[in-house]
Amino acid sequence: AGDAAAGEAKIAVCAACHGTDGMATAPIYPNLAGQSATYLESSLKAYRAGERGGGMSAMMTPQAQSLSDEDIADIAAYYSSLE
Amino acid sequence: AGDAAAGEAKIAVCAACHGTDGMATAPIYPNLAGQSATYLESSLKAYRAGERGGGMSAMMTPQAQSLSDEDIADIAAYYSSLE
Repeated sequence: AGDAAAGEAKIAVCAACHGTDGMATAPIYPNLAGQSATYLESSLKAYRAGERGGGMSAMMTPQAQSLSDEDIADIAAYYSSLE
Repeated sequence: AGDAAAGEAKIAVCAACHGTDGMATAPIYPNLAGQSATYLESSLKAYRAGERGGGMSAMMTPQAQSLSDEDIADIAAYYSSLE
């Protein structure tokens, strides 16, 4: 399982769209506050693997590709812990 | 924009995983309660188009392919309205 405190230090880029509080900054982006960490990890790994197209994948794929498994677990833990 | 009341009548299949209240029945599934309707529509259309792979897409793609644009808008409005 990820470390939410470590995740908080890794979300500077994520927060531009998903908020530091997990509430999206525009309706096309999903809210992440309180989302299942397991699901968030699965989603980020699908983007990273280039499996998840459509939607905002042109933005998400390269972002996810900059993340390690540990980064993904930490970020998922952080957003899941909110609200 | 979709009709949340109409959407409520269309979520019998969705609810098996995402709940009638938008809270997922297992951690691998995302919670949908209060999620942005715009995002939910975008996601369902990406699944329907076969663009969104990975994760649970083997389940979601055929489900989304059974939905019209109106169904998608109504279901998105319903889950977005919750909580």
